[in-house]
Amino acid sequence: MPIPQHIFDPPFNIIRCSHAMLDVTDLDASRKFYETVIGLHVEDADGDTVYLRGFEEHQHHSLVLRKAATAACDRLGFKVGNDADLDKAAAFLAANKIEHAFAKVAFQGRTLQFTDPFGYRIELYAEMEKRPHLLRRYEMYKGCHPQRLDHFNVFAPEVQDTMEFYARLGFRLSEYAEEDGPDGRIAAAWMHRKGNVHDFALTNGRGPRLHHFAYWVPTAMNILHLCDVMASCGYLVNMERGPGRHGISNAFFLYVRDPDGHRLEIYTSDYNTMDHDHAPLRWSLRDPRRQTLWGAPAPRSWFEEGSEFPGQPLREPKFKADVIVAD
Amino acid sequence: MPIPQHIFDPPFNIIRCSHAMLDVTDLDASRKFYETVIGLHVEDADGDTVYLRGFEEHQHHSLVLRKAATAACDRLGFKVGNDADLDKAAAFLAANKIEHAFAKVAFQGRTLQFTDPFGYRIELYAEMEKRPHLLRRYEMYKGCHPQRLDHFNVFAPEVQDTMEFYARLGFRLSEYAEEDGPDGRIAAAWMHRKGNVHDFALTNGRGPRLHHFAYWVPTAMNILHLCDVMASCGYLVNMERGPGRHGISNAFFLYVRDPDGHRLEIYTSDYNTMDHDHAPLRWSLRDPRRQTLWGAPAPRSWFEEGSEFPGQPLREPKFKADVIVAD
Amino acid sequence: MPIPQHIFDPPFNIIRCSHAMLDVTDLDASRKFYETVIGLHVEDADGDTVYLRGFEEHQHHSLVLRKAATAACDRLGFKVGNDADLDKAAAFLAANKIEHAFAKVAFQGRTLQFTDPFGYRIELYAEMEKRPHLLRRYEMYKGCHPQRLDHFNVFAPEVQDTMEFYARLGFRLSEYAEEDGPDGRIAAAWMHRKGNVHDFALTNGRGPRLHHFAYWVPTAMNILHLCDVMASCGYLVNMERGPGRHGISNAFFLYVRDPDGHRLEIYTSDYNTMDHDHAPLRWSLRDPRRQTLWGAPAPRSWFEEGSEFPGQPLREPKFKADVIVAD
Amino acid sequence: MPIPQHIFDPPFNIIRCSHAMLDVTDLDASRKFYETVIGLHVEDADGDTVYLRGFEEHQHHSLVLRKAATAACDRLGFKVGNDADLDKAAAFLAANKIEHAFAKVAFQGRTLQFTDPFGYRIELYAEMEKRPHLLRRYEMYKGCHPQRLDHFNVFAPEVQDTMEFYARLGFRLSEYAEEDGPDGRIAAAWMHRKGNVHDFALTNGRGPRLHHFAYWVPTAMNILHLCDVMASCGYLVNMERGPGRHGISNAFFLYVRDPDGHRLEIYTSDYNTMDHDHAPLRWSLRDPRRQTLWGAPAPRSWFEEGSEFPGQPLREPKFKADVIVAD
Repeated sequence: MPIPQHIFDPPFNIIRCSHAMLDVTDLDASRKFYETVIGLHVEDADGDTVYLRGFEEHQHHSLVLRKAATAACDRLGFKVGNDADLDKAAAFLAANKIEHAFAKVAFQGRTLQFTDPFGYRIELYAEMEKRPHLLRRYEMYKGCHPQRLDHFNVFAPEVQDTMEFYARLGFRLSEYAEEDGPDGRIAAAWMHRKGNVHDFALTNGRGPRLHHFAYWVPTAMNILHLCDVMASCGYLVNMERGPGRHGISNAFFLYVRDPDGHRLEIYTSDYNTMDHDHAPLRWSLRDPRRQTLWGAPAPRSWFEEGSEFPGQPLREPKFKADVIVAD
Repeated sequence: MPIPQHIFDPPFNIIRCSHAMLDVTDLDASRKFYETVIGLHVEDADGDTVYLRGFEEHQHHSLVLRKAATAACDRLGFKVGNDADLDKAAAFLAANKIEHAFAKVAFQGRTLQFTDPFGYRIELYAEMEKRPHLLRRYEMYKGCHPQRLDHFNVFAPEVQDTMEFYARLGFRLSEYAEEDGPDGRIAAAWMHRKGNVHDFALTNGRGPRLHHFAYWVPTAMNILHLCDVMASCGYLVNMERGPGRHGISNAFFLYVRDPDGHRLEIYTSDYNTMDHDHAPLRWSLRDPRRQTLWGAPAPRSWFEEGSEFPGQPLREPKFKADVIVAD
Repeated sequence: MPIPQHIFDPPFNIIRCSHAMLDVTDLDASRKFYETVIGLHVEDADGDTVYLRGFEEHQHHSLVLRKAATAACDRLGFKVGNDADLDKAAAFLAANKIEHAFAKVAFQGRTLQFTDPFGYRIELYAEMEKRPHLLRRYEMYKGCHPQRLDHFNVFAPEVQDTMEFYARLGFRLSEYAEEDGPDGRIAAAWMHRKGNVHDFALTNGRGPRLHHFAYWVPTAMNILHLCDVMASCGYLVNMERGPGRHGISNAFFLYVRDPDGHRLEIYTSDYNTMDHDHAPLRWSLRDPRRQTLWGAPAPRSWFEEGSEFPGQPLREPKFKADVIVAD
Repeated sequence: MPIPQHIFDPPFNIIRCSHAMLDVTDLDASRKFYETVIGLHVEDADGDTVYLRGFEEHQHHSLVLRKAATAACDRLGFKVGNDADLDKAAAFLAANKIEHAFAKVAFQGRTLQFTDPFGYRIELYAEMEKRPHLLRRYEMYKGCHPQRLDHFNVFAPEVQDTMEFYARLGFRLSEYAEEDGPDGRIAAAWMHRKGNVHDFALTNGRGPRLHHFAYWVPTAMNILHLCDVMASCGYLVNMERGPGRHGISNAFFLYVRDPDGHRLEIYTSDYNTMDHDHAPLRWSLRDPRRQTLWGAPAPRSWFEEGSEFPGQPLREPKFKADVIVAD
């Protein structure tokens, strides 16, 4: 299937992925998990909401946990270049008949919320309250030393269409997995704005659902230590996959599940993609090194389970997720 | 079942495990694997034999590869304190009606060879030709930076009896896995002479067979890099298990298979056991963290396959290996 | 002194620093140093020139060594977005009466060469021959596993003016060191295009000279191993400073000198700066953690020695380099 | 000068170094340093004393901090094999006219205290209260993950005589630094009982004084992180030397000073020495790689400052410490 070309003059300028907003059913349990085990910094909290960030981040939050009756991925946040980009975005959405609204969001400037044509709930903003980064506050480091939110990965029933929509917004394709043959469908796509492998990735599957969000950590040693910690203090069942090396993105990874089952990837060592002539890397679905360079298979849950977006009905993918599972 | 008490005055003084002698069917392929991929230093080689050692070792060899029609573990070598210990060992073997003989072995001083009552082919020596260690020759480091042979692990059909025999030789129990209940049988035993977790370990299973031998490397990073290298140059199928953390011994491990299927563990981060009052650590067979702290199961091959000793008929274990597999 | 504001619409689009061209007096010695000790991949070589790159790089070369009678930094190369940017750049240079010329450069597309108003010899290009990256060819990794060229750092006699010139080209300031007080002069500036801490940094000192160029490596462990290797094989005197942690950029660093004295930084763990509202971080010249978070001082040579650009007369800085040395 | 031969049948059996007892002037400040920054586990504490241990240690304490008017090293503790060894030790001390006494020491069994002929205050014991080790309690790890006390290093005015005395007690020489020439004096000696590089090391200098005690950590990464933490939370001035690689012992090291100036080495990656025929490694005083493989010199304080033993008058060394400093 055709892969989209880079668009250098998108209708508005998204800089990068910025924050995830998760609905969680037990706020204390979730805070304990993200603060104590993973090691994110709690910047603010009240009885209903906890705001967290990584040690490199200047922004007020990159993860928002909200107390809710049902676990869900409420929204995925992206940062745009400046205030004018928000108006350009609103114009684009209007022109494309995508419902949208400016909302008042705590700690953020003007925030434009919309649900894309595929059911992903998105918000855009240009300004968030700043906090001094904690990069050199090593005495505060804990857990696996999470530095920054790196990307979102979603289950997409229509990978090709979704990829094309985001390509129109300026997202560039860095890697993709494709069926072999002249009509091979694209089963997964990794797209970025910020110049590394991904800000937003699409995986063939029942959706719209969040597959995972990822924090970047400095080295694999931080991930190995997290494994030891999780195994030692009652989170063994939360370790879903890894540690291991992806062929795709070259990342060293660990996938863990939070107390509500939201999936978090702890991630390091991908590569730079800011060149305008950076060519997307194609993987055959038949190449086993794509998912795990070292050969260990992912568990079935990794292919099947994800976090729904509130109010967004699920659709089955156009082709079988088992194509991937079978690899 | 009773565990043996430390014997502080054994009949002769074994210092540590010293070297493995493997029969291999394709000497070039084996040399390439151990020298280029694993990174051992080839100290000597002729058309029939290759002698290798780790970068910390002063001794001429800790691994001997011998060209043979059939893959096998020819012998496991242990070093004794001095020449007199060899005579004491011969006297002990004679008193216990264990056949033995002094043999001429290249690069070694007087060498006493015997097959123990359970079929393990052993040799003892006090002196081997010395070579300058390569510890500070960092420019020669390659592969996963293997430093020293650490231990042997064998399949034992009679774990309890074998453990008791080696306890009489002064081997101390550091950890063991046991069925629950008053008559619980010991399914695995880790025994040492040199003051860390093991020189010689016993695993319930069809035997006598070598389960694996292990080289110690400085850090987990060396092991992760080895995974990347093996996956990149055609040795993906040789990666059998890991990387991961054992509950037992606390080791970070990777198990790989050489071109003949001999199993090698790459290993780091165990602990010290030289205290006379060091109490053996008991693991219940029902504790899943025993085998892998992080929860990933070992493949079936890991429980079933091993290297036979020439001329030693195999016996089935007294109780089912499946007790372990079932964990 | 005033710091420049971000310019979002520069006259042409530089993506990132791309390659250094060094004149070396003993090509074999230099190749041995960069290929064997540092571990760069030699992509091409003839009797006069060696082309090298890091394991992540798709481009033909990021370091060019040219046999010459005198050691020098011939040129610093930057990549622009596309071919049209080269024409825009030529127009900008013409408008600013900066001499420039398109040159034929091996393995590169159209290449625009100029000497900036301060004496730095620069070249711009949009296309270079591509090579498959070696990121997943782990079996080829050697030395300290250099992944990519990260930045250039030059001695600048006029830091303020030079910084302002490059700000006009769209370079953004990430960090800077300044004298205290209302008229405090800027002694050093770190500027980037690609979204990390720097592509081009300016250090107060006799110039124009190259202070160093830097390659990024995955982890500090790669740098520690390089130290061991250099100390073991005759390059002890080439280790000039570190390993250590910079306050500035948070980088873990090692500075080494090549056989001609060209300075190379091996570097890891800085941070992202792609946000449009990323505020430059100010360091007081009196803050000792700026240069070395851990307190160890840099040697005098580090402040005084650098690589000249051919034909560019040296000027003394407007204020004493000793302000820095005295820290 | 002659180096002592291994004595395999010492008058009593010391297994290893066990614990240091330090007099500190501000118990809260010291506890904060060792517990929060270094990361030792506080096992017990009252208003006058704090007991700490590493995460691998089964014993109640390996560091005892006692509130005192004057900072000092009160005693160095060694563990013997069993209770009978204490009586043998008492007999040996009596025969050698060395004053000694059994003392009641909290948490320890029978404890034999003496001051050796050179002024080092020592205590021996066979049994200490046991505590479950914390090796697999990764959720409790903090600081630099100190695992176990590794060794003591003392300033000795009479290195040769002190070395010979401890050799009679069964300590084996692993490495030593010697003046060149036929009458070259030994300036430093590393001696062990437990089978690694040292339990007790002697450095030529004004003494008797403790130069440092050392804790072993798993990897260099733990040490680099400690550097970052100390630099970030007010302990920059406590970082005295390193991180770096010793030629001697091959250790990766960091030397820090506690709030009273007691010196602590954080240490990893030495090697095994349990072989009976392990030959001591000689270093010429003229070999600069001995102290620091990477070339960075130690500060003057490192050669001059140490912790006195209460009531033990200081003596100048027989030859100038400057021999070492001059290296």
